[in-house]
Amino acid sequence: MHTTTMSIPISFAPLDTLPAVIRSGGVEADRCLVVTDEHVAALYGDAVCNSLVPKGLEPHLIVLPPGEATKSQDRLAEICDRALAWGIERGTPLVALGGGVVGDLAGFAAATLLRGIPLFQVPTTLVAQVDSSIGGKTGINHEAGKNLIGAFYRPIGILTDPALLKSLPTREWTSGLAEVIKHGLIADDALFTELETHMEALFDRNESVVERIVPHAAGVKVRIVCEDEFETGLRAILNFGHTFAHAIEKVAGYGAYTHGEAVAAGMRAALHLSEYKTAGFDAERADRIVRRIPVPPGLASLSIADLMDAMKLDKKVSRGNIRLVLIDRIGHAFVAGDIPSTLIEKTWAFAQEAIG
Amino acid sequence: MHTTTMSIPISFAPLDTLPAVIRSGGVEADRCLVVTDEHVAALYGDAVCNSLVPKGLEPHLIVLPPGEATKSQDRLAEICDRALAWGIERGTPLVALGGGVVGDLAGFAAATLLRGIPLFQVPTTLVAQVDSSIGGKTGINHEAGKNLIGAFYRPIGILTDPALLKSLPTREWTSGLAEVIKHGLIADDALFTELETHMEALFDRNESVVERIVPHAAGVKVRIVCEDEFETGLRAILNFGHTFAHAIEKVAGYGAYTHGEAVAAGMRAALHLSEYKTAGFDAERADRIVRRIPVPPGLASLSIADLMDAMKLDKKVSRGNIRLVLIDRIGHAFVAGDIPSTLIEKTWAFAQEAIG
Repeated sequence: MHTTTMSIPISFAPLDTLPAVIRSGGVEADRCLVVTDEHVAALYGDAVCNSLVPKGLEPHLIVLPPGEATKSQDRLAEICDRALAWGIERGTPLVALGGGVVGDLAGFAAATLLRGIPLFQVPTTLVAQVDSSIGGKTGINHEAGKNLIGAFYRPIGILTDPALLKSLPTREWTSGLAEVIKHGLIADDALFTELETHMEALFDRNESVVERIVPHAAGVKVRIVCEDEFETGLRAILNFGHTFAHAIEKVAGYGAYTHGEAVAAGMRAALHLSEYKTAGFDAERADRIVRRIPVPPGLASLSIADLMDAMKLDKKVSRGNIRLVLIDRIGHAFVAGDIPSTLIEKTWAFAQEAIG
Repeated sequence: MHTTTMSIPISFAPLDTLPAVIRSGGVEADRCLVVTDEHVAALYGDAVCNSLVPKGLEPHLIVLPPGEATKSQDRLAEICDRALAWGIERGTPLVALGGGVVGDLAGFAAATLLRGIPLFQVPTTLVAQVDSSIGGKTGINHEAGKNLIGAFYRPIGILTDPALLKSLPTREWTSGLAEVIKHGLIADDALFTELETHMEALFDRNESVVERIVPHAAGVKVRIVCEDEFETGLRAILNFGHTFAHAIEKVAGYGAYTHGEAVAAGMRAALHLSEYKTAGFDAERADRIVRRIPVPPGLASLSIADLMDAMKLDKKVSRGNIRLVLIDRIGHAFVAGDIPSTLIEKTWAFAQEAIG
């Protein structure tokens, strides 16, 4: 339906350039909503507010509890209630300051408040900087599954400051690396080779490596989204490992795994299946990097029948067929729609054995 | 941000062509959600379902209570819960069968379920056929005001059958005429002249007049929306009478007035102000038609202070200024942003006097 030519305006710049990013997005308002979570507010809330005030943007901070459970209908309603009680207008910008949960939830609030107010994403986690802040997907979870309610809504601007990543807990950092690895595997063999070379430095968050890898990995996402904003084709490859991951997250209960951990586990499953489908594909080279991402034990205790049921509810299901993203060489992915359930069950059994 | 060239695919055709409309929208699904209300379900629910089944579209009917109170967060959640429990996929179409309440609510559900499923509007009221089904505005009410949460979401197709209007209660019919008159006043003097000529026949729902007027009035909306999908300019003129109307509906309590009745009252206020602002404008000629729309008494008992407060919460407010649509000749409207509050208060006093 939509046939727009899009560009995705990411500024890789320090956090205190936020007012300039907002103004260069054409916003003339004198007030600004900032939605964040308690962890991020403690680290960067004051800095953000202090940067906005002198530039004539009175901030109104909405601070939510951290964690996936926040991506709920109730929290969405809370943001809307508070924004409307404060008295927003159509030109009032909303800044989503945080990781994927804040970005998805606050982005959906921006998409639906007054049928859409200007949205700015300020991603503070690695996952958000290279993946979730890019591409306009917003939404909340539903008891039937993750991200089942939402909207495509373009941010006016994205401000990405890799220096913020120093404050990430280790588990969030390694979870983000899973998505970075995914971008290399599906669409950029040069990125993957760089990861192979610098994996130690990345685990240590070596500053110069991080400052090079973040824009590189974000660029992969930008390229794919620009070709397929509304996920009618190519964009599906970004779901490499994700159909497995969503099932793991759902069956284990949201919060047992980080999204990145579930994706790492899901990619190991998808690589196994990829090797089965493409003779000669060097899954071991790929898996050698993926399995560096620590995944908590527990997958082996989940019911394969439950995991299969959860997969069938995934949004990527088409007319009852489970479609999976596989890769046939490093840097190239494709969608396979013809995979028998029995094979997927065997893949789960492999993953349970391999991951524990 | 968006710079799409849009077209609005309306089929003026009998209700039983619905399956053809869905298929010509490129939908390949074998199932179909139908959202409607109890009144419409009683009249047309069976006919719609019976037309879908033989064309390979298994319908799942969601029937809601009639009335503005249905445009709520709770009913939205109910539609989403039931749709997800039934097991929709991204290609499953949703048919919004009803008036403006059903169209706005079910349209918003379609916009946000799985981040957007194919939407078909089947408007069954005059307001919906000439106005609310056209232009992609969807949404729900909030305690802070009407339509404060929503999305712009294009239907794949609109099926408009003027024959359905025979079953409308008189009050719904005359309410719809208010929007038809509005379209003439703001953008089509030929339509307004036709209304002057055929007002009696329209009140009698003369078949041939209705079949000519509905597409004519719908065409005015199409023209305006195609020039300004996201309401950044021209589209604002469609709100002629509406800033007053929204305030009336809110202060009187939703349901005391139909939307069309409130718009008729709001247009009388806006015409009065238009005459004040444009010397020589023949407000009496316009008002002669507008005042034919019956409006229940009670406006005079509302507090002008409350009405003013409600206006200031309207989405069209920009940086605290109340902007109003006025007309300077029949068939031409403009937005005035420089109207002092005292003048608006006087206009409310006039409307209370004139309408009672």
